[in-house]
Amino acid sequence: MRVTQLFTKTTKNAPADEVAKNAQLLIRAGFVHKEMAGVYTYLPLGKRVLEKIIQIIREEMNDIGGSEVSLTALQNSEVWKKSGRWDDQVMDVWFKTKLANGTDLGLAPTHEEPLTQLMKNYIHSYKDLPIYPYQFQIKFRNELRSKSGLMRGREFWMKDLYSFSRTQEEHDAFYEKTADAYAKVFDRLGLGDFTYKTFASGGSFAKFSHEFQTVSPVGEDKIYVHKEKNIAINEEVYTDEVLAELGVSKDELEEMTAVETGNIFTLGTRFSDPLELNYTDENGESKPVIMGSYGIGPSRLMGLIAEHFSDDKGLVWPANVAPFTVYLVSIGNVKEQADKLYADLTAKGIEVLYDDRDERPGAKFADAELYGIPYRVTISERLIAEQKLEFTTRTATESELLTEDELLAKLA
Amino acid sequence: MRVTQLFTKTTKNAPADEVAKNAQLLIRAGFVHKEMAGVYTYLPLGKRVLEKIIQIIREEMNDIGGSEVSLTALQNSEVWKKSGRWDDQVMDVWFKTKLANGTDLGLAPTHEEPLTQLMKNYIHSYKDLPIYPYQFQIKFRNELRSKSGLMRGREFWMKDLYSFSRTQEEHDAFYEKTADAYAKVFDRLGLGDFTYKTFASGGSFAKFSHEFQTVSPVGEDKIYVHKEKNIAINEEVYTDEVLAELGVSKDELEEMTAVETGNIFTLGTRFSDPLELNYTDENGESKPVIMGSYGIGPSRLMGLIAEHFSDDKGLVWPANVAPFTVYLVSIGNVKEQADKLYADLTAKGIEVLYDDRDERPGAKFADAELYGIPYRVTISERLIAEQKLEFTTRTATESELLTEDELLAKLA
Repeated sequence: MRVTQLFTKTTKNAPADEVAKNAQLLIRAGFVHKEMAGVYTYLPLGKRVLEKIIQIIREEMNDIGGSEVSLTALQNSEVWKKSGRWDDQVMDVWFKTKLANGTDLGLAPTHEEPLTQLMKNYIHSYKDLPIYPYQFQIKFRNELRSKSGLMRGREFWMKDLYSFSRTQEEHDAFYEKTADAYAKVFDRLGLGDFTYKTFASGGSFAKFSHEFQTVSPVGEDKIYVHKEKNIAINEEVYTDEVLAELGVSKDELEEMTAVETGNIFTLGTRFSDPLELNYTDENGESKPVIMGSYGIGPSRLMGLIAEHFSDDKGLVWPANVAPFTVYLVSIGNVKEQADKLYADLTAKGIEVLYDDRDERPGAKFADAELYGIPYRVTISERLIAEQKLEFTTRTATESELLTEDELLAKLA
Repeated sequence: MRVTQLFTKTTKNAPADEVAKNAQLLIRAGFVHKEMAGVYTYLPLGKRVLEKIIQIIREEMNDIGGSEVSLTALQNSEVWKKSGRWDDQVMDVWFKTKLANGTDLGLAPTHEEPLTQLMKNYIHSYKDLPIYPYQFQIKFRNELRSKSGLMRGREFWMKDLYSFSRTQEEHDAFYEKTADAYAKVFDRLGLGDFTYKTFASGGSFAKFSHEFQTVSPVGEDKIYVHKEKNIAINEEVYTDEVLAELGVSKDELEEMTAVETGNIFTLGTRFSDPLELNYTDENGESKPVIMGSYGIGPSRLMGLIAEHFSDDKGLVWPANVAPFTVYLVSIGNVKEQADKLYADLTAKGIEVLYDDRDERPGAKFADAELYGIPYRVTISERLIAEQKLEFTTRTATESELLTEDELLAKLA
């Protein structure tokens, strides 16, 4: 893509009403626009990052047998009344609205109820199980406060996968499989080294659930980590009993501040009981389906990655989620050669943002840094005379001079 | 994908409360689930079709210089009050809701206002124009009645592109370019032969707008078509004056019933005036930006394609939007050979839905037909003995026997 086609612009100053660093940077770089607190428009560069995060999660969910669906935001009250979660006192983040005929509707803050209800059409026998539908869907949550930028949204992207299993054993095996898939997602996003699978409270059907907690000073959670044993414990279950069960002692644990970036949860029959989602087993006996839920928030991850990897010059995207791989800067009267290089790189499948503006080099370099594109390639009259290109990584302080062949080899 | 991984099931009977043929078929085949009138969940097969339609539109919008963004559903009242469309009497399809602090919000039924407002951040000079942002976004419209299945939704997918131009001439040129891109979209969707670019009323800033009307007995619109001259006129502008202007007479025109599947509209300064979206021209003079809007509804198109191409056996997807290209049916004890064929076809990049169920052939064939997959390939002990595969197209009455090499050549 050419920068002259990109309608967004970078700005020096963040908007005064935006207090979160991730949103400040993303707004300054023109990746998102704030509609209101917790509600962000994704602009072309931000949309590309969001889609890359979504695609990584999608691949890992498909890999463990997930089937992608897309549920609806508009919700009838019926199934939510059966589960007891229609009441604003019970679920305090509902946005409610009404059909033209006066019928009450809600905007789904999560999708256990409608999906459980839907599955009554398809699950009858043990032969129909197990199954793993998932979706990327906009969730609506009427948070009282929303000051963390993309990290706590009122309208935000969520990947939610649900498991429907015959037995506890079958459920447990998939639960572990999902935990492994989540670890792969965090690795691919560049967050693996400081994201911990963390023991958290389990609700009625399991002693523990697990959160994926990514260490960050802006986190709202406290976790206790044993790095060698790779054990992490959320504050809410940080008790002597749990420590004894996990074979760790307080003095071995490091307290860290972290952001919950994923969670996996054993639902048991919490929803299959009230909504009567049952199946007939091999012996003709009717049994409730065992459920689990597995969430990761792509927009929260985008905020976290923006916040974590940034420096004083701007954003620093890991290569896997960067909106483009290369920022191509042309300096001076080199349009023909720069156009050709852009075409060459693009033909090789390399994603290039080509700064073809009539703008001074310093401004182009500053934008490349604020955008956080991993590699910058500069072409100028002087460099063309030497048959070289200047190659700079976003995180390095030094540049190197490469021939076009050397550049292509490096980016391959 | 294996059918045993697909959690949906086909059913013989459509739900009693569903009166639209497109939704009846899509529900029977397990492509969608009806949450409430005009609100459908996309199940795995339906999600695949929807994504293919979206991808075709995306490619054509990128091809004319579109930049993909994603605006928000939640809307503050402010900009809508400025344009005069916040009032339920003016815009009668609003879903309204409230923030926890009591602030009124709406769910966007369209996005002219927030996008015009957003552009005030990025459009200042003539150098910033023209630009063409677009999105695929769920729209919410509180329709009083919604009985046309996927063809008139209360929550539905819309592609909306907006143009921001300096002058009327620049606008007009892009308007024509978009019309051509739309024609390509309809061709690729298999609807080109019976979709007409139709003169419709233009509002305050142009004599005409243009609708893309696809001929269908379930349409809500009447159009008058001159096939040879490729001129179509919507009922609303079917006047003697317009006929004279277009050089056609009533007796040359054929009356047809059609569905509005796309529209392109000159907005002029309808939104840039009240929201003060201006730019400074080459002479330093401030001028309002000239806008246009361009819509296509992917979910409506999915409903229309389902309805139009169906027969008494079920759905009949055009190859470009079919959820899978091949339905592979194994008969009898041929698991090993069928698995290998599935792997061979998939390795060639062919999208295969593999019916690996322990189910009688008739049931498998009936599902293949209801699903509407373009090609069916059957493998059985008898066929293996002959080193042949049976190849059947969804629309043909005859089958042919092919070797695997012949099959691969045909599908290439």
